[in-house]
Amino acid sequence: MTRTDGRLNNELRPIEIVTNYTKHAEGSVLISVGDTKVICNATVEDRVPPFLRNSGKGWISAEYSMLPRATQDRTMRESTKGKVTGRTMEIQRLIGRALRAVVDLEALGEKTVWIDCDVIQADGGTRTTSITGAFVAMMLAFDKLVKQDKLKSYPVKDYLAATSVGILEDAGAVLDLYYLEDSAASVDMNIIMTGEGRFVELQGTGEEATFTREELNEMLALGELGIKKLIEKQKEVLLNEGIKF
Amino acid sequence: MTRTDGRLNNELRPIEIVTNYTKHAEGSVLISVGDTKVICNATVEDRVPPFLRNSGKGWISAEYSMLPRATQDRTMRESTKGKVTGRTMEIQRLIGRALRAVVDLEALGEKTVWIDCDVIQADGGTRTTSITGAFVAMMLAFDKLVKQDKLKSYPVKDYLAATSVGILEDAGAVLDLYYLEDSAASVDMNIIMTGEGRFVELQGTGEEATFTREELNEMLALGELGIKKLIEKQKEVLLNEGIKF
Amino acid sequence: MTRTDGRLNNELRPIEIVTNYTKHAEGSVLISVGDTKVICNATVEDRVPPFLRNSGKGWISAEYSMLPRATQDRTMRESTKGKVTGRTMEIQRLIGRALRAVVDLEALGEKTVWIDCDVIQADGGTRTTSITGAFVAMMLAFDKLVKQDKLKSYPVKDYLAATSVGILEDAGAVLDLYYLEDSAASVDMNIIMTGEGRFVELQGTGEEATFTREELNEMLALGELGIKKLIEKQKEVLLNEGIKF
Amino acid sequence: MTRTDGRLNNELRPIEIVTNYTKHAEGSVLISVGDTKVICNATVEDRVPPFLRNSGKGWISAEYSMLPRATQDRTMRESTKGKVTGRTMEIQRLIGRALRAVVDLEALGEKTVWIDCDVIQADGGTRTTSITGAFVAMMLAFDKLVKQDKLKSYPVKDYLAATSVGILEDAGAVLDLYYLEDSAASVDMNIIMTGEGRFVELQGTGEEATFTREELNEMLALGELGIKKLIEKQKEVLLNEGIKF
Amino acid sequence: MTRTDGRLNNELRPIEIVTNYTKHAEGSVLISVGDTKVICNATVEDRVPPFLRNSGKGWISAEYSMLPRATQDRTMRESTKGKVTGRTMEIQRLIGRALRAVVDLEALGEKTVWIDCDVIQADGGTRTTSITGAFVAMMLAFDKLVKQDKLKSYPVKDYLAATSVGILEDAGAVLDLYYLEDSAASVDMNIIMTGEGRFVELQGTGEEATFTREELNEMLALGELGIKKLIEKQKEVLLNEGIKF
Amino acid sequence: MTRTDGRLNNELRPIEIVTNYTKHAEGSVLISVGDTKVICNATVEDRVPPFLRNSGKGWISAEYSMLPRATQDRTMRESTKGKVTGRTMEIQRLIGRALRAVVDLEALGEKTVWIDCDVIQADGGTRTTSITGAFVAMMLAFDKLVKQDKLKSYPVKDYLAATSVGILEDAGAVLDLYYLEDSAASVDMNIIMTGEGRFVELQGTGEEATFTREELNEMLALGELGIKKLIEKQKEVLLNEGIKF
Repeated sequence: MTRTDGRLNNELRPIEIVTNYTKHAEGSVLISVGDTKVICNATVEDRVPPFLRNSGKGWISAEYSMLPRATQDRTMRESTKGKVTGRTMEIQRLIGRALRAVVDLEALGEKTVWIDCDVIQADGGTRTTSITGAFVAMMLAFDKLVKQDKLKSYPVKDYLAATSVGILEDAGAVLDLYYLEDSAASVDMNIIMTGEGRFVELQGTGEEATFTREELNEMLALGELGIKKLIEKQKEVLLNEGIKF
Repeated sequence: MTRTDGRLNNELRPIEIVTNYTKHAEGSVLISVGDTKVICNATVEDRVPPFLRNSGKGWISAEYSMLPRATQDRTMRESTKGKVTGRTMEIQRLIGRALRAVVDLEALGEKTVWIDCDVIQADGGTRTTSITGAFVAMMLAFDKLVKQDKLKSYPVKDYLAATSVGILEDAGAVLDLYYLEDSAASVDMNIIMTGEGRFVELQGTGEEATFTREELNEMLALGELGIKKLIEKQKEVLLNEGIKF
Repeated sequence: MTRTDGRLNNELRPIEIVTNYTKHAEGSVLISVGDTKVICNATVEDRVPPFLRNSGKGWISAEYSMLPRATQDRTMRESTKGKVTGRTMEIQRLIGRALRAVVDLEALGEKTVWIDCDVIQADGGTRTTSITGAFVAMMLAFDKLVKQDKLKSYPVKDYLAATSVGILEDAGAVLDLYYLEDSAASVDMNIIMTGEGRFVELQGTGEEATFTREELNEMLALGELGIKKLIEKQKEVLLNEGIKF
Repeated sequence: MTRTDGRLNNELRPIEIVTNYTKHAEGSVLISVGDTKVICNATVEDRVPPFLRNSGKGWISAEYSMLPRATQDRTMRESTKGKVTGRTMEIQRLIGRALRAVVDLEALGEKTVWIDCDVIQADGGTRTTSITGAFVAMMLAFDKLVKQDKLKSYPVKDYLAATSVGILEDAGAVLDLYYLEDSAASVDMNIIMTGEGRFVELQGTGEEATFTREELNEMLALGELGIKKLIEKQKEVLLNEGIKF
Repeated sequence: MTRTDGRLNNELRPIEIVTNYTKHAEGSVLISVGDTKVICNATVEDRVPPFLRNSGKGWISAEYSMLPRATQDRTMRESTKGKVTGRTMEIQRLIGRALRAVVDLEALGEKTVWIDCDVIQADGGTRTTSITGAFVAMMLAFDKLVKQDKLKSYPVKDYLAATSVGILEDAGAVLDLYYLEDSAASVDMNIIMTGEGRFVELQGTGEEATFTREELNEMLALGELGIKKLIEKQKEVLLNEGIKF
Repeated sequence: MTRTDGRLNNELRPIEIVTNYTKHAEGSVLISVGDTKVICNATVEDRVPPFLRNSGKGWISAEYSMLPRATQDRTMRESTKGKVTGRTMEIQRLIGRALRAVVDLEALGEKTVWIDCDVIQADGGTRTTSITGAFVAMMLAFDKLVKQDKLKSYPVKDYLAATSVGILEDAGAVLDLYYLEDSAASVDMNIIMTGEGRFVELQGTGEEATFTREELNEMLALGELGIKKLIEKQKEVLLNEGIKF
């Protein structure tokens, strides 16, 4: 039983990462995973939120948004609505938390790294694609700081990437759901892992459905596989920029 | 190595569920898990959100809030701030999604069940306690509808409860973290399961930390155990109200 | 002509005041007047609003809210609406102003006492019940400060309580209106008085109606009587906590 | 003991009412009470708020605002703040409620009368001056409707005016406080009465102070006197416009 | 071909400027251009916005609003809506920018002049009338500062006034459009000029229409003429107050 | 005297227009003018705003935003601020108005075209670049509607483009200012014109400065020249897509 786009159950969509995509940001990336395209910009500020002042520690804060027509139908802008939706808040909190898990905030020092993930085109997996791209944008920013002698070395403990897995009635457990699969899946799980294969975050949700321990195990195996490939891609892209650790 | 409050690693805090706690709501419960106390009120409305009109299906929608002084320090009201925080949105989306996973929305028909979870006193685990209490409040409301001949039978597929598990540096994997443990834990996971032991939702987060597959397995085992006990308690309380399914 | 709940025209509903109701607040009370139930929590902060900085004077600030299902029909949360209604603002301004009339703000020193009144169940008179309960919660907080040597003595000039009076077409002037009476009354007056029988605030409103000087006098007499009894109850409850002045 | 502006304790400030002040409104008045100046515009709309649809009854709704520099120091606009303050809400609710007490809403029929009170210059008593002026503006609008055969007769039961009274340390009970007196008064009471001398609303507040029954009686006597004179002025002004009832 | 109100194409409406209109503002003017009436109040504050602190330079900031019933139909208050509309923002940014073009901000020193333009009655040209009146109100405030020795001389480079011009299908290019003409015009241009005849701002808009270079030239000629007359009027009014430069 | 980037005074920056840039929008363009890059997406909806219902006419509505790091320093998101700034409102009103001037809204019929201009990278002239790109995106959408037989022909009267001109102290009048010039210019003018050379909108502003009629004429000549070249580019790009009119 193959998937509607012809992929194998354990196959990622094609990944492309364009570095230095915009000129002002300290780190800038355009990442595509299939038809999902996200601009990830990293900005470094020499100050921290109030709760960290004089702590010697830095912070990573993320914001996420979609262009109104990134989606099939036009979505109203959150600025026009006058408020950020719950979905957006969940996603930007997730991105920030994930990056902080692999950053040595003390080595970073009292700086804030702002990660802006703006989805240009959406086709499923925008939050996991944002995390995978954000890690690269952040590394580019760190590299600039190192070259400017503002950091001694990359304040990073490990690589970080994310993907989604899920369960489809016909195909069973599949890796990296695109939009049509995402809408049809009874279970949807986002997995964020490090280069060493440790979990950073796991969010599995039955959409008006439930899942068994066996299904969970299947999904975890697919996720682990996908993240390994995503991190290989990150390594290759960063090496092209002379970044290695 | 025992826990700071003397519990075993696989031990829940004492649970109390007072039914019919307030007089206006169709279903009302005051649930205590240790010192965490939540009023869960269920309201039934004879209409559905726009996207479900004329679909024949009902909806479950949840809201969550804390009294300003439910916490150690006073928290500013979200009404005063003029907006709901990201944390609150995440929690109320989670509660609604969890309940919808065990409700037969077609059998419910075009009704909305509003679940209001108001935390009177917080000591860790407010979101999982809210879910466990909300299920009971919802059942009380359904029972009222059945008695009024507005429903033929309980539109529910299974019991539902939630708990937290986590990893502490000293004690290892533990069940049902109270506030002090929650602050100290490197990994925190919320687990929502049904009476049959199926997963509804799984949210594991490394707080500036990561976790291995082995640790995940340990936490899942503790969660499964805790939820069994919580559902026994729910059954006992509902049986006292003459509710069984 | 008796009242629909069988009370005499000059009879209060049963009053109950549970002290130390929640564990975090400096002063905490659950007050019931008939079926109206309010949690009153007092929080002490070591700072004052900007207009009082370096004045040596303290401040009392109150907030008021109702759980969505405190009422017969569910009321939308003000946090969800994104703003506090005019009614809520009126009430919280009233509670704060009333308490400040009996507190010696200079003796309090540069501290803010936050009073949170959260209505768990509403059956008429929620604002007057909040004031009566808030006074007790505030005294419990002051007692804690005295015991911690943060205050030399209770910075309070007199007791304070509040009740409502009104005019019903059938029953005439009545004391302590419950919800059904409140909806039917042509005139509704809230009276706040001190232990010595002095007025703190008087708010009488003809609801699409007017009232004469004679009716005003009748209502004032009932209010005076009711407040005496409420203050007796406050004294008894505070004495049980060892508080007397 | 005379007052700081030389008036007797029972003396109002000079009153002036300019009718037809702006050209678009159905009823328009510029009222001055001493240096307090308010533009009161009445607008008639052929619809009612949702809760009155198909009831056959009309509604009176009021809004109140001050120009930023109506006051000694510039006040930030509420539109700039993005919200209406509690004080403004209290006042506009008061104005609407007071007018509704003398209007026969059934005789008005399904129309809404919007009353806009915009304070051009403030010197104490802006809310009571607004009510006194609003009544005249509303009558001018009703007169226009009668002349256009949209109403058979004025849907009004009685005249309506408002004033303030208070207690000054030096002067004792005084009528119609101007700004300096208002700031100094320990007690401040707004009184709204009809042409027949019935109370519509009574709001007495001890500002960090309290007052006795005797003081209340003194203030009520002054208020009654002042309102008689205000209503004489209203009658004279309306008669000039050919309006009598 | 004459205009619907009988004016010549190059004729302004009657102008009236009442100085010292309200008593609290440092400079206050009621300006009427035909039936358009605006209160312009100037307030001087001894501080500047953050971006100018310690720069030695001052700032001019303008706010603009209309009374709800300044217009033919009642307009909802922006404070009630909870936000300032795009139109209002455009206008208040325009007024501030225009005044800053003729003020020597360094000679003003670290002060902010707030200009509040409140439209009492609208009949076309409210933004240009606001600018013409605001200049006079600002000069009155500067005069007060000079008399109080807070300024050495008027920190102003030139006079400033504004008018509108447009193109009507029947009448061709016309000066100073009133409301009916404004609604009918295919092209509408606001012109702001100095006493020396230099442009400060030019905003020409085809309303679902376009215009040629010849039409532009005709409009510019009319605008120049009108502004000369407006500035003559300003000079006369200011001279009456003893202000000349 | 050459410009800091070496261009002649009457020279535009390099222009690039990528068509069909994103896959969901009916019309999508990535336009670059120098380093200013804007994604312009056109969405067609089969309904119109309330004021046009049953009028047979369509509408064009534009929204404009910048990615936070489109600029040299990171700009806070308007969704996070909870409101759209005055600058953004001005720009999106301008874009919509400009497009409506060349669209035959009756031929369009009761449809709304949403134009979303999202600035990916900013280097001066973002509003004029948005208009030039938006026209192309709109034409692509119209072409799709024509091909789907939803429109008989392009409901467009003429081509439309925009550019900026300004006056620099050193270089004099210049065409198409980039960011550094824009910050330094004493006068800044945006010009929007049609293919036939008619004006649609003209906005000239002295930034704390003024300008003469001669300078105005110089700027208009430059603008006319630049717009001719921009429209040539639009024609070439549209012709490649088979669009000509």
